[in-house]
Amino acid sequence: MMESGKGRDEAGVAAAWERLRGLPNPRLAALFAADPARVEAMTRQIAWPLAPGSAAEAGMTVDFAKTHLGPEALDAFEAMAEAAGFAAAREALFSGGIVNVTEGRAATHGALRGSGTEAQVEEAEALLARMGMLVSAIHEGALGEVRHCIAIGIGGSALGPALAIDALTRDLALVDVHVVSNIDGLALEQAFAACDPATTLIAVASKTFTTIETMTNAASALKWLADNGVSDPGGRVVALTASPEKAVEWGVDETRILPFPESVGGRYSLFSSIGFPVALAVGMEEFGAMLAGAKAVDDHFRSTEGRANAPLLAAFADQFYTRLMGCQTRAVFAYDERLALLPDYLQQLEMESNGKSVTAGGAPVDGPTAPITWGGVGTDAQHAVFQLLHQGTHLVPVDFIASIAPGDDLDPAHHRILLMNCLAQGAALMAGKAAEDPARAYPGDRPSTTFLLDDCDAAALGALIAFHEHRTFANAVLMGINPFDQFGVELGKAIAKQIEQSEGEFDPSTKALMAAAGLG
Amino acid sequence: MMESGKGRDEAGVAAAWERLRGLPNPRLAALFAADPARVEAMTRQIAWPLAPGSAAEAGMTVDFAKTHLGPEALDAFEAMAEAAGFAAAREALFSGGIVNVTEGRAATHGALRGSGTEAQVEEAEALLARMGMLVSAIHEGALGEVRHCIAIGIGGSALGPALAIDALTRDLALVDVHVVSNIDGLALEQAFAACDPATTLIAVASKTFTTIETMTNAASALKWLADNGVSDPGGRVVALTASPEKAVEWGVDETRILPFPESVGGRYSLFSSIGFPVALAVGMEEFGAMLAGAKAVDDHFRSTEGRANAPLLAAFADQFYTRLMGCQTRAVFAYDERLALLPDYLQQLEMESNGKSVTAGGAPVDGPTAPITWGGVGTDAQHAVFQLLHQGTHLVPVDFIASIAPGDDLDPAHHRILLMNCLAQGAALMAGKAAEDPARAYPGDRPSTTFLLDDCDAAALGALIAFHEHRTFANAVLMGINPFDQFGVELGKAIAKQIEQSEGEFDPSTKALMAAAGLG
Repeated sequence: MMESGKGRDEAGVAAAWERLRGLPNPRLAALFAADPARVEAMTRQIAWPLAPGSAAEAGMTVDFAKTHLGPEALDAFEAMAEAAGFAAAREALFSGGIVNVTEGRAATHGALRGSGTEAQVEEAEALLARMGMLVSAIHEGALGEVRHCIAIGIGGSALGPALAIDALTRDLALVDVHVVSNIDGLALEQAFAACDPATTLIAVASKTFTTIETMTNAASALKWLADNGVSDPGGRVVALTASPEKAVEWGVDETRILPFPESVGGRYSLFSSIGFPVALAVGMEEFGAMLAGAKAVDDHFRSTEGRANAPLLAAFADQFYTRLMGCQTRAVFAYDERLALLPDYLQQLEMESNGKSVTAGGAPVDGPTAPITWGGVGTDAQHAVFQLLHQGTHLVPVDFIASIAPGDDLDPAHHRILLMNCLAQGAALMAGKAAEDPARAYPGDRPSTTFLLDDCDAAALGALIAFHEHRTFANAVLMGINPFDQFGVELGKAIAKQIEQSEGEFDPSTKALMAAAGLG
Repeated sequence: MMESGKGRDEAGVAAAWERLRGLPNPRLAALFAADPARVEAMTRQIAWPLAPGSAAEAGMTVDFAKTHLGPEALDAFEAMAEAAGFAAAREALFSGGIVNVTEGRAATHGALRGSGTEAQVEEAEALLARMGMLVSAIHEGALGEVRHCIAIGIGGSALGPALAIDALTRDLALVDVHVVSNIDGLALEQAFAACDPATTLIAVASKTFTTIETMTNAASALKWLADNGVSDPGGRVVALTASPEKAVEWGVDETRILPFPESVGGRYSLFSSIGFPVALAVGMEEFGAMLAGAKAVDDHFRSTEGRANAPLLAAFADQFYTRLMGCQTRAVFAYDERLALLPDYLQQLEMESNGKSVTAGGAPVDGPTAPITWGGVGTDAQHAVFQLLHQGTHLVPVDFIASIAPGDDLDPAHHRILLMNCLAQGAALMAGKAAEDPARAYPGDRPSTTFLLDDCDAAALGALIAFHEHRTFANAVLMGINPFDQFGVELGKAIAKQIEQSEGEFDPSTKALMAAAGLG
């Protein structure tokens, strides 16, 4: 992937796949029987300081033992990673190499948490400090009383902040933030209904500051402020963008523009100024804890080789199920209300990054690329979709995520039942159950990976996000694709513009729908 | 499927598949070129009265033209439906036949809106009238001031009410309802934070009145009322259940128990007393409008043959993509904030109903069954997952749903941009685009179906739900499976109980996770 696949040995990658196809594929139970130390061999731990400078640690355990990866498969995948130039690509990622080859750019999201070149990290720290000053100033009343914030952005400018705010503000929000993304006016109206215009700040997040949904919503939000007696609506806007000049043009005062580097992709931007609404809601200290958790995963990913590297090992499993077992999906179930939006976040991260058909060099990819990431919240999902996981015909590799420490103050039975159910599902998927009545039989041998967090706090959230960024990157390197562009979203935008301007040719179905909808 | 596949001609079904496999599979563009009247031929309309007794109508248009179903494929699918005994199975569904063969029960959700035997419809009407009286009594103050309701239930007892309340209360809620499902105490705490205990009603929804999540949450909710000075917490409970005797045992007064028939499945129960929180929030008139929309689809489904039958035609497309084209998923994108929860609702309906491996007679199903239903809200999803739809390697049949009438009162630009984007995506998926740079090329020929609602109101919501119930049923009949049981969810529950009681044998990975989590 690095610089158009330089350093990639395509024949070596193909040979590793050939080797994998030739291996027996024992049932999970046989893998456990063959190796009494399988759990230790397949469990990874990543830790971080409990607080800045603290010697005490917290962390997460990731148990891959219930995947079908055996020692020989891991040997083959390690050979594949080597042939794919994984180490060089990883080094390029962290050292400012042009890993986004189609757009001729580096990908510097790592630098946002201190994992990058000195210059990148310095720039990121300066921008973070600038954001911290604005956040503090607002908390201290520099913009008058601010009790609410409508944070307008879409895609990469919305999913991360929405996830982090939902996860981290259950106990207390310094400012009540509503993330609005959809152009559907109902989304904005819902936020209006929950906010007092006199004490509401508008954060406008758009990398280009031209996104049609975001700019339309921003204009309507300013109109709402004006219609409700706010004398200087423009003075209530904070802009989060990689195009500060566009924000100035749009009328935002430079003191309220928080830039981020062009080399930070939208879906990788939560730790940049795109995270401003999060910092406003939880404070800079919590925001810093999120960065520290992510940094711990960066360090692990950067310094650990082969199967010992947890995100790389996760990518081995992804490749195994997607490309060898024909799985078109992978599922993520968070057994924690605070991570309810994580499946949506990972959908974007993984599907937009690796849902491609060509390599970084422009050749057709040999075989399937990113699966569809889907999922939900446990235990809810058990009562909705687990029927198919247990007894359906499609093999779905599942990730479970749970926190050992409870987040609630109710009877401890709540959290105990939650955790028991999470572990029971992984056990049941693997064990299966014979039965005389075929309708009551379970084939079993269905794989899962379990993420056990010591606590579901800001650091753990940062760690989970960085883990999946690197897992996605590792998958991209193994497939030879560029995870940092997203040209697939352009055509729909172009055709929407054609409809608006009644230009171009449409198919008869689209024409009939346009007529029925009163468009064009 | 009807009574263990009685009337099903397995050889005839196999012959239809053989015929389908032998057909050419032209690109969408070729199908349009071959038939200038394709749009008319592949578009269905279902209408309902705009108001009770009104001659004016509203409705929905479903455009299947951008699927790969050509006239010969439709001939083969009609032959398959005949061989599968579709007409008899449908008649059995509406006339109280034992369509749920493994549990020896009828499936009478149709009767809830007037589509069933006389006796079933009479029973449903009586139960509905009872619910209406309680709703009116509460609105009139019979239980004191009721401003909030915490509606506790999970799976089929939660997803329907949550969808309907989110869809229908944007303008006004007579009572502020919070649906709580998860055993994670954070879910309940979030509802507590939004409600005043002195004016909060607790609705407990469980078909068996033994669901562990629901009963644990109900107990904690009563404790919260008591801890906050409510003198008779038990007097604030309304029970929605098919096991009224269990609710009495649990301490609910009979006057506050709203039963529903055992023959109504959880995921088919929104129109039963499980819909009580919806009626409480929107009133019985709106609830009735939802029933009327569903009834219109029942009538269409019951009285229309072959490809003219819209839910059956949708099932033909589902079968085509899942079993002939190897699609493991189908995606639903609602271009309307009010339908944000529809994909979750359909996930349960479709995956729990048809995510099976055996026929109603207990034989292994020949080929894949229900795909994974996933999706999201437009335009948000365009900025998150559409990259994969346009340029990924997995074929995903897509449903788009949009409302012609706007739901918001903002600048009309919001709704116009929303609709333009919805139609543009379907057009772009089909058209594709050649490009010299392979990273900027789109293969096109990707299928979609568009649901265009005149308005996204209660009737349309009822119609969408009934449409998908019947689509799911039709898929089940074509595959010969029983969509009304869900034995696949039992094993996980049994293992959770074993963990709780430290009984039974666990695999080494589960044992290690239990130890790490402090369980067992």
